[in-house]
Amino acid sequence: MEGVFVSDFIEPVKARSNFPERVYVLDTTLRDGEQTPGVCFTLEEKIEIARRLDELGVDVIEAGFPVNSEEESNTVKTIKRERLRAKICGLARCVTKDIDACIHSEVDRVHIFIATSDVHLKYKLRMDEEKALEQALVATDYIKAHGLECEFSCEDATRTPIERLIRFYKSVEEHGADLHNVPDTVGVMEPEAMFELISRLRAALKMPISMHCHNDFGLATANTLAGVKAGASQIHVTVNGLGERAGNASLEQSVTALHAMYGVRTGIRLNLLKETSRVVERASMIILPPNFPIVGNNAFAHEAGIHVHGVLAKAESYEPLTPEMVGQKRRIVMGKHTGKHGVANFVKEKYSLTDEQIAAVVEKVRALAIHKKKIIEDDVNAVVDEVLGSVPEGERHVRLDEILVVTGNKITPTASVQLTHNSQKRVAAGIGTGPVDALSKAIQSALGEEIRLLNYKLEAISGGTDSLCTVEVMTEDKDGRTAMGLAVGGDIVMASANALMESLNRIYSKRIKDNEHSGAAPSRN
Amino acid sequence: MEGVFVSDFIEPVKARSNFPERVYVLDTTLRDGEQTPGVCFTLEEKIEIARRLDELGVDVIEAGFPVNSEEESNTVKTIKRERLRAKICGLARCVTKDIDACIHSEVDRVHIFIATSDVHLKYKLRMDEEKALEQALVATDYIKAHGLECEFSCEDATRTPIERLIRFYKSVEEHGADLHNVPDTVGVMEPEAMFELISRLRAALKMPISMHCHNDFGLATANTLAGVKAGASQIHVTVNGLGERAGNASLEQSVTALHAMYGVRTGIRLNLLKETSRVVERASMIILPPNFPIVGNNAFAHEAGIHVHGVLAKAESYEPLTPEMVGQKRRIVMGKHTGKHGVANFVKEKYSLTDEQIAAVVEKVRALAIHKKKIIEDDVNAVVDEVLGSVPEGERHVRLDEILVVTGNKITPTASVQLTHNSQKRVAAGIGTGPVDALSKAIQSALGEEIRLLNYKLEAISGGTDSLCTVEVMTEDKDGRTAMGLAVGGDIVMASANALMESLNRIYSKRIKDNEHSGAAPSRN
Repeated sequence: MEGVFVSDFIEPVKARSNFPERVYVLDTTLRDGEQTPGVCFTLEEKIEIARRLDELGVDVIEAGFPVNSEEESNTVKTIKRERLRAKICGLARCVTKDIDACIHSEVDRVHIFIATSDVHLKYKLRMDEEKALEQALVATDYIKAHGLECEFSCEDATRTPIERLIRFYKSVEEHGADLHNVPDTVGVMEPEAMFELISRLRAALKMPISMHCHNDFGLATANTLAGVKAGASQIHVTVNGLGERAGNASLEQSVTALHAMYGVRTGIRLNLLKETSRVVERASMIILPPNFPIVGNNAFAHEAGIHVHGVLAKAESYEPLTPEMVGQKRRIVMGKHTGKHGVANFVKEKYSLTDEQIAAVVEKVRALAIHKKKIIEDDVNAVVDEVLGSVPEGERHVRLDEILVVTGNKITPTASVQLTHNSQKRVAAGIGTGPVDALSKAIQSALGEEIRLLNYKLEAISGGTDSLCTVEVMTEDKDGRTAMGLAVGGDIVMASANALMESLNRIYSKRIKDNEHSGAAPSRN
Repeated sequence: MEGVFVSDFIEPVKARSNFPERVYVLDTTLRDGEQTPGVCFTLEEKIEIARRLDELGVDVIEAGFPVNSEEESNTVKTIKRERLRAKICGLARCVTKDIDACIHSEVDRVHIFIATSDVHLKYKLRMDEEKALEQALVATDYIKAHGLECEFSCEDATRTPIERLIRFYKSVEEHGADLHNVPDTVGVMEPEAMFELISRLRAALKMPISMHCHNDFGLATANTLAGVKAGASQIHVTVNGLGERAGNASLEQSVTALHAMYGVRTGIRLNLLKETSRVVERASMIILPPNFPIVGNNAFAHEAGIHVHGVLAKAESYEPLTPEMVGQKRRIVMGKHTGKHGVANFVKEKYSLTDEQIAAVVEKVRALAIHKKKIIEDDVNAVVDEVLGSVPEGERHVRLDEILVVTGNKITPTASVQLTHNSQKRVAAGIGTGPVDALSKAIQSALGEEIRLLNYKLEAISGGTDSLCTVEVMTEDKDGRTAMGLAVGGDIVMASANALMESLNRIYSKRIKDNEHSGAAPSRN
């Protein structure tokens, strides 16, 4: 596969695995993902996520557990009526009420489950095996009598004896179940055992097998892949690995590994992974850590001097695949580890500078790194601009002279600012939903133009109220120029102000350059 | 193993694996972990982390890359002079200058590496295989001549032909290298291939083998375990899975899986995992997502009604191990998914209430859930208190009447508050490093007592400056009573104020109860 640089040691493994021709992806972000403690999507968010999943290419969307509430049932129905390409699936216990709620929601597929492990039968269901099986069969019959697809799960399958598992799956199969899902409900499996389990089930059963893995030991991706190696042809996944406790298998990791490591096909358009991840991050309010595989902000970021050297010489030295393949970008981050070599190489690669100019850039970047902890490509560009004299050192297009921000429980958050823009003093005030919002409004008002805030990201760390926070913003002017700004500080409001200022100054720099390089306004004809 | 509830399907896998008697843990949080883009530890933070790692029971601490700078070299030396139980290791390229820097730092072990894959040799080192091998041997001789332990890595080993790998490792072994580390530098392996690779190396080599896995496809834990299954007896890990790009294998996941799934011994005291993770989270400013396995805040949290029911009936239904084993706590989170059943069961389990009282609690909790999105155990306790009348409904011990917070670039962040505490009006002002810090100081001053802020956690999500944020605080009074507070809102400062108020009210409730239940002050004799 082009742009993929994985290990050759995987070849013999591929050759002897029982991979299916194609793997079907069932996304359960809207069901198991929403069961993440603290996560709650609105109807609008669910519709947006369903549309994105459809565009991404998932085959089945598990849209909810309709019996939960009238609202949940209506949400599933609304999603179904979006007429997406993906099939819509609803979850149900093996009881008529639950299945009726699915039918009422107009789903294509009902996913029924009943617990089969000793601990679940005894303490949760308080039911014996015979009674559980009977319920499963009645439920299967009921679904098939309504002409719907039936996917059946033995809950806690991986702690159920193999004979009992085969008995349940074989029986529902005889009653017309279309698909056997094998949930590792509590995340208690490891890949080799999973391979064997799925191989044994495959040998005993006729219908396709589906994987559903949880990440309690960090093995959800590996277990999902092991099941597919043994012939499972559907995987249950969630965007960003959301889900109860440590979450479900991540869609991004599982699907990218299938494509890149094993060359197994799915319907997923990998280049939409990053974008989809962002939509779900925002709706779930579960912030991805930068080191999250594939879609995290650091997944294709490089700091160390040696590595930056290697990456610039040949990207595959330190990247398993090209970032563009999964909708990502390579980020070069300079920090205190970055040797002169790293900075110099980066600069040489991008600009034609004299040795003196390079030395000046390297020195300034390293000084900046100590101050800011985290230096991005944009910072280096700004330093180069300074050194080249295109933006005279010390001159900022916009300078914040005075800020005053007030908030409280009986007042509307209010900010006043005094700016210097191209040597002109400007003052303005603004109000907002909070102090940072008020500040952003005041700055826009002072500048007399609308600056769209594409992204505002605040990272704070557990600690005292006096701990540091990092603010990252991305702004866009009316002509579509964008720029990032980054600031670190102990005062959330001031860090936000500094980050906004930084990005605005970059936009103004770009604007000046554009005007220098082209007489006429850019046209898109 | 007691308190562990993993799958029986793992038993045959264990029986046929080549597990070593004990696995040694080399933690590289201070070296590879610090290479995380944007992470930079101070000397004090490094010493604190090293002490914690030692207490945790790691066998080797890779403390830095001494040649990087005089400062880095001194940091490693300072850590060495802490006289920890763990061995101290320094990283070096196969060049004298690097090894000298390690020697100067007084390390016990030098970890040398040289790239051996085609892509690294050609584009990074611009060196042929013979030259690289020669450098490796000279470096090994040099380290052994100085009486130090020598750990040798073929960088990018997993993209190096097997014959070349064996040639390098065998040669350094003949020159006295003590340990062979096998880095999956770019995270391009999968578990089965890793098992085979390590098995072949084991067969060809005499000295112990060490694993070093990266998480680019989410397989670092699985690959580390696969190597140990094949007989590797040391693992390189980082706390919280820090490291370049998607990070290294996580210490928490790898070690807990070894103990719980395979019964393989390490020196790690699992019950210190959560605490160690927090220390590194704070120092690295890389915030763990709640669904991070083992040590994330949701790893033992339960929301869904069905699951809460199951967990309360028998914890192992939905937990792979007891939370206490890894220094965690079970958290019951109620949300919009929580059926009446879930809330009612939770309440029945903990309190003796009449059916009417239970119904009243359930109704109030569900109403609260819609408002707050996220309800924790403490909230339910507060509702029960209300219903039982011990804290009359609507009465709060402390009520915030007025807040005014001001910040800006030319003033010290200042807050003034007016509170009602036990029907008495109190006013005070405070200053701080930022608006939230100033507010916290003003509240303490108004109350006339010191409230220690154990934890302040702000979660904000990418979006506009008007997006929501969640503030979670944990406070402690002078007698050691602690309570959490949680608030969500569009104004960071007001959300912080509300969260602080909530936790303070809980502390005051506890204080009143303690005074009712005991005449005398508690004594610890």
